[in-house]
Amino acid sequence: MPTLILVRHGQSQWNLENRFTGWWDVDLTEQGVAEAFAAGELLAEKGLLPTVAFTSLQTRAIKTLHLALEACGRLWIPETKDWHLNERHYGGLTGLDKQETRDRHGEEQVHVWRRSFDVPPPELESGSEFDLASDARYAGIPVPRTESLKLTIERVLPYWESAIRPQLEAGETVLVSAHGNSLRALVKHLSGISDADIASLEIPTGQPIVYDFDERLVPGERRYLKDI
Amino acid sequence: MPTLILVRHGQSQWNLENRFTGWWDVDLTEQGVAEAFAAGELLAEKGLLPTVAFTSLQTRAIKTLHLALEACGRLWIPETKDWHLNERHYGGLTGLDKQETRDRHGEEQVHVWRRSFDVPPPELESGSEFDLASDARYAGIPVPRTESLKLTIERVLPYWESAIRPQLEAGETVLVSAHGNSLRALVKHLSGISDADIASLEIPTGQPIVYDFDERLVPGERRYLKDI
Repeated sequence: MPTLILVRHGQSQWNLENRFTGWWDVDLTEQGVAEAFAAGELLAEKGLLPTVAFTSLQTRAIKTLHLALEACGRLWIPETKDWHLNERHYGGLTGLDKQETRDRHGEEQVHVWRRSFDVPPPELESGSEFDLASDARYAGIPVPRTESLKLTIERVLPYWESAIRPQLEAGETVLVSAHGNSLRALVKHLSGISDADIASLEIPTGQPIVYDFDERLVPGERRYLKDI
Repeated sequence: MPTLILVRHGQSQWNLENRFTGWWDVDLTEQGVAEAFAAGELLAEKGLLPTVAFTSLQTRAIKTLHLALEACGRLWIPETKDWHLNERHYGGLTGLDKQETRDRHGEEQVHVWRRSFDVPPPELESGSEFDLASDARYAGIPVPRTESLKLTIERVLPYWESAIRPQLEAGETVLVSAHGNSLRALVKHLSGISDADIASLEIPTGQPIVYDFDERLVPGERRYLKDI
């Protein structure tokens, strides 16, 4: 039966520093590396071995994928990297310390930006040090200047339909290594979570989430692999 | 202009132990990891940044690719893993210590197996601990029981034509992370080396080899990146 495994990247340097990251490319911490490897060890222990993998264009998700695949002896499976699985773009908040941002804009405003469904943060100013418009990685790609969770979902789901779902239809065990908000997009879709509830659903780092599908490709319960 | 970069994987555990490896999956040593990372640092230093990558289905080449890409900030480029780029299959010699093999079969016979163009070693016995017929990695793939260099070339070159060359035609900077003999196949083809001379051409580990191509896709001189 087709199975989908979702893994959020291990702790990144800016997770640790409590800064808004979004599309900015930040590496894993030592703890993040350990979490990613442990995710793969859990796949091996549970005998849930991916046959096809997807990840974003961001180092923290790609390295999480590679470490997890190495740990479960599956470094050789096909992998596809695509910007549609990138983290939500945090616009003008990129790089800011979350506490600083609260001090400056107020607790309530920051809560809205982080936890509302369709309110994007202010746009990233052009000329910002976090502007990716001239990054070779994103050549030909419509880099957003900011994204709400709703806008993030609107670019993740077409990719789910065109690239990931067909692999499940073909019976594969698909591993997706991605980010808090690109994974929220998939979980919202697969578990039928409301607009109101999705933003507060926490996706823990390095903790594989599993969906089994039936023959008509209807997903079953969302479960943590550690509990199976 | 299209450019091809060839990198042989860093030192593996069986390179270190002087054992015939072939298709057996052996990891990099610490030195091998350092060589792979240094190869990527050299790419960055010379400003020769790959845009597309190919590797084999073997851990030592895949990890060499990932370490080199990480070191030059290109972990996000598309990568394709394919068995056609695997090392030459050493048949019944797989796992044997090279000195032991000389003691048992004689210096001359081992020299013929290692350095002749078209004499394959004895076939791997079925039931051998090194038999990969039931390895999930090679499901649906015609795993050889032994290969001469000639037979290796005969499966590498069609893959060159169908998968790698089209990327160069599209103007890409292509990185291939592979093995001593699968890279000999490419170097023989591109530099027009004779059947008699190719087997003794040494491809050093972790040392990027560069070919520039002209607009008709004729390759120029073979050069070590360190000398450019």
